[in-house]
Amino acid sequence: MKIYFAGSIRGGRDDAALYRRIIALLSKYGQVLTEHVGSEGLTPTGEESLSDGDIYMRDMAWLAQADAVVAEVSIPSHGVGYEIGQAEALGKRVLCIHRPGTQRRLSAMLAGNPTLRCESYESIEHLESILARFLHTSP
Amino acid sequence: MKIYFAGSIRGGRDDAALYRRIIALLSKYGQVLTEHVGSEGLTPTGEESLSDGDIYMRDMAWLAQADAVVAEVSIPSHGVGYEIGQAEALGKRVLCIHRPGTQRRLSAMLAGNPTLRCESYESIEHLESILARFLHTSP
Repeated sequence: MKIYFAGSIRGGRDDAALYRRIIALLSKYGQVLTEHVGSEGLTPTGEESLSDGDIYMRDMAWLAQADAVVAEVSIPSHGVGYEIGQAEALGKRVLCIHRPGTQRRLSAMLAGNPTLRCESYESIEHLESILARFLHTSP
Repeated sequence: MKIYFAGSIRGGRDDAALYRRIIALLSKYGQVLTEHVGSEGLTPTGEESLSDGDIYMRDMAWLAQADAVVAEVSIPSHGVGYEIGQAEALGKRVLCIHRPGTQRRLSAMLAGNPTLRCESYESIEHLESILARFLHTSP
């Protein structure tokens, strides 16, 4: 299975360590195409060795290949929102996960969208069971 | 002309007064379907009189009707990113505008996307000329 993981890069890297843990969990189910999203070296400046156009083309090619999309949506991000919109248009299965501790309410475009699955998680153990339910279900 | 204006709500309302000025500029060219995005009374909690599902259905119906989409992308927002992704999938003309003064780099999903027009503006006068160019051009 190919999994597209989406997390904030230029929107802010406060959750980078969490993304790494999520990517490690997802790797048990298949290949995570976007492993760099958890990289410690990646700052809010983004990937400096690639042009924005090259990043866009690569990520959209990965999204087209993905069997499932998992988006961590606790930190607001245009890129993650865009990827969810495109994934939906491509008919992909999308899971949005967020931590309830953050003070922000999840966007109505995600929380009110009947084609997405949105779940909040209290701990990594809780998240593990959410991911297992999502990734063990056939499309 | 029907115009869909997108700006951050639950991502943060720091730019609400700016959104009102942009909506006033856009109103010279047609009907702004999403006038509430500039509302002073709208907090990061969002519209409390509607369910998330009702907000989603209403906004997607407006997006489907729109002749042009203008998104202010200086404040990271999942909702705005999602709307841009959906607008692109629907074949809409999309203009993303942002203020260069903010420290964040624009997402590569927007800045590197060849189907969107992204422009940074230094002043309202500068923005007026960007909007005039975008909205006077035929599809």
